[in-house]
Amino acid sequence: MFSVVISPRFGDVDGLGHINNVALACWFETARNPLFAIVDPSLTINRETWPLIMAHTDYDFVNQIHFRDVEIRSFVDRIGTKSFTICHEAWQEGRLCAAGRAVLVYFNFQTNQSRPIPEEIKRKLAGHLRPPSAGRV
Amino acid sequence: MFSVVISPRFGDVDGLGHINNVALACWFETARNPLFAIVDPSLTINRETWPLIMAHTDYDFVNQIHFRDVEIRSFVDRIGTKSFTICHEAWQEGRLCAAGRAVLVYFNFQTNQSRPIPEEIKRKLAGHLRPPSAGRV
Amino acid sequence: MFSVVISPRFGDVDGLGHINNVALACWFETARNPLFAIVDPSLTINRETWPLIMAHTDYDFVNQIHFRDVEIRSFVDRIGTKSFTICHEAWQEGRLCAAGRAVLVYFNFQTNQSRPIPEEIKRKLAGHLRPPSAGRV
Amino acid sequence: MFSVVISPRFGDVDGLGHINNVALACWFETARNPLFAIVDPSLTINRETWPLIMAHTDYDFVNQIHFRDVEIRSFVDRIGTKSFTICHEAWQEGRLCAAGRAVLVYFNFQTNQSRPIPEEIKRKLAGHLRPPSAGRV
Repeated sequence: MFSVVISPRFGDVDGLGHINNVALACWFETARNPLFAIVDPSLTINRETWPLIMAHTDYDFVNQIHFRDVEIRSFVDRIGTKSFTICHEAWQEGRLCAAGRAVLVYFNFQTNQSRPIPEEIKRKLAGHLRPPSAGRV
Repeated sequence: MFSVVISPRFGDVDGLGHINNVALACWFETARNPLFAIVDPSLTINRETWPLIMAHTDYDFVNQIHFRDVEIRSFVDRIGTKSFTICHEAWQEGRLCAAGRAVLVYFNFQTNQSRPIPEEIKRKLAGHLRPPSAGRV
Repeated sequence: MFSVVISPRFGDVDGLGHINNVALACWFETARNPLFAIVDPSLTINRETWPLIMAHTDYDFVNQIHFRDVEIRSFVDRIGTKSFTICHEAWQEGRLCAAGRAVLVYFNFQTNQSRPIPEEIKRKLAGHLRPPSAGRV
Repeated sequence: MFSVVISPRFGDVDGLGHINNVALACWFETARNPLFAIVDPSLTINRETWPLIMAHTDYDFVNQIHFRDVEIRSFVDRIGTKSFTICHEAWQEGRLCAAGRAVLVYFNFQTNQSRPIPEEIKRKLAGHLRPPSAGRV
């Protein structure tokens, strides 16, 4: 599991007095930083060397989030041949407030084609698989 | 169908030279403005009167989007008793680049409870249902 | 003058019921698109060819902005040897609501050095100088 | 001084391979959270009780920022009768990369009028004034 703590910014609160749904897209992306460091420790982002493209994201909004710190917990959920899935959960004051997934594809931006995930990367990702008992509360 | 044209901003392009996934969350939200005007023509956003809460969003990233205008086409996809679903598609230069959905629940922020969608709103939403033949290309 | 009309997104409204200050940074950047098309009509963004780097921005918040369309008017304000200044104004329902500037430097990202603005670009920028009588209302 | 450490998100890097200018507007806003806790420890954001409105922000972009952690240092710079100024600096790997200011006005959103800063708040803000020797490097 990766865990990051996010301090919302003032403008993340929308006219309904709670955190706007778009903030979760930003926060879950921030929560993938430790995972990005697994696939490319140099964190150099360019089309020549960066190996991941986003295929899918989804978000379930379970409880309203307030203007307080939020913990984002992330797990590797599935490791396929050419893609893998990350699960994210947003927790605030002991409550699961949002959950979602991101499907990332191993990709060559020069040829615009997906490609197999190297075995070494698969092994490192496997170290962050959600433990069997760690279901959502 | 609702159609809005979005001019990406410079910073929507990420280090891979294409539009970052989070921009789609912003653009699809902007594309819901005509729909918000159906449920509350005054567009007054506050917890006393605003009737919608977001329950779910998802995004499929089909083709890379470039730093050019993008058309967002939106349809009502499902009208339930207390919630409805909006479909969004992002089109650029004749190609479907991203698609997604938003599930919105009729909600009373004073009591924190969902409530039935008024019949008049249902009728207006029904005028924007995706026509049977309008499947994705 | 360049003019673009922005439809705020729901989440641009913050907990005070008005548009959050950060939205203006996004909108003024979007308003620079026609200007970016002057300096590089291909709008290809990369470190090899893109000629501009941001040196300064500022924002004066004059009147609260509501969840309605906003017009952003932009002028070239100053053309120097290696940099130029753009002025932006946000207008809503006949009122100036925000104003600001961006200073952009002609730049070579390969050598990390500023460079003179080509004369042809200067001429094109000069076509968008604020007319002498066009002071703020 | 307040200090917060920001982990940029992937999409904060723009097509030039460095952090986009708009990210600084978000980060400086996040860096004001400890200050917001001074003026209203409940951090309840609504038009009935929230006492601050933004009047001005500015940003100087001094050095390019990379996809690495950034420290935002904030100081109170000026305490007037009805407004005060906050200075922010973004530091990365020992270098000042961006600096800016925010002018916040004590405000009554019910009457839409500025009002004097309470003496107790002034005293608390004064505890975070930039020390005389702490000029920018």
